[in-house]
Amino acid sequence: MQEFEKLPGIGPRSAERLAFHILKSDKEAALALAGAIREVKENVRHCRVCYNLTEADPCPICADPRREQSVIFVVEQPNDVVLLESTGLVRGVYHVLLGHIAPLDGIEPGDLTIDALVARVKKGGVKEIVLATNPTLEGEGTALHIKSVLADLPVQITRLARGLPSGSQIEYATRAVLQDAIDGRRVF
Amino acid sequence: MQEFEKLPGIGPRSAERLAFHILKSDKEAALALAGAIREVKENVRHCRVCYNLTEADPCPICADPRREQSVIFVVEQPNDVVLLESTGLVRGVYHVLLGHIAPLDGIEPGDLTIDALVARVKKGGVKEIVLATNPTLEGEGTALHIKSVLADLPVQITRLARGLPSGSQIEYATRAVLQDAIDGRRVF
Repeated sequence: MQEFEKLPGIGPRSAERLAFHILKSDKEAALALAGAIREVKENVRHCRVCYNLTEADPCPICADPRREQSVIFVVEQPNDVVLLESTGLVRGVYHVLLGHIAPLDGIEPGDLTIDALVARVKKGGVKEIVLATNPTLEGEGTALHIKSVLADLPVQITRLARGLPSGSQIEYATRAVLQDAIDGRRVF
Repeated sequence: MQEFEKLPGIGPRSAERLAFHILKSDKEAALALAGAIREVKENVRHCRVCYNLTEADPCPICADPRREQSVIFVVEQPNDVVLLESTGLVRGVYHVLLGHIAPLDGIEPGDLTIDALVARVKKGGVKEIVLATNPTLEGEGTALHIKSVLADLPVQITRLARGLPSGSQIEYATRAVLQDAIDGRRVF
């Protein structure tokens, strides 16, 4: 129960319920869970190129010759890679920052994988860095920092489009969304 | 009670509650409501220029010499004007379509104020038409139709930006939003 309670979103009551479930379940099911937890900790690591979570190193995306290695989508977390991959829209590769700059939480640029990104660009062959950090204060600050550290390198820096989310109604848009939509309007 | 029940979102129970409220309230309050309803029907009309709801004709926005009359934001409904005005970001004027094209609901282009928009552009002095219809199937179809009827006129046609809504997290974006965000990415 003490171990379950350390997990996020599990309170004392849930921990108790989980613990009794383990006690009641057959031995195989319980050992399968224990085995999966151990296996994931032993076999899943960060890709040495893009820092995504992977069992193979480099990860299957970095190792795929059909991907455009010259276009790098920079995201905050491994789950952003999962989401973008699920759309099938990204032909390039990724770079996972493993967080965003948040000075108030003590997360400085040096805590992220920004140095490794700069090294990837300096190695050459990279044409475009697509900043795909979250459109939040921290994501935006992180994007601006990366832009500044890449400023002197011969690479184009782009950012995912901001604006009205497809399928929404203008009447429910916030001021910030409308500002992006008006400022970013394009020839149609 | 029968009259209240005809209002949107008012069922028999609410209609009963409203009717008894009128019966209980003092005469002045009841007559104030009746007067407001009559007044709004008698005095509020569509602006002859932009078709927004207004008491003065032309409406205060169309009549304001400080507004850029050369930039027209095309919206579906009068409440979109209210929202865009609340942001203070629009220096141009408006054109209210009074709906969107929806063949399945029997709403054809001729039911909207598109002819009046074309006439405004033909009169001259209009540099940019900003299509600010909703980023929905109907709004998009309406925008495409307007683009085609204005195609031969010397006016730039733009559309509000689509993409990630500011303040959101990428992990909650839909495929359509991500597609707009990736396709519309810009130099940063």
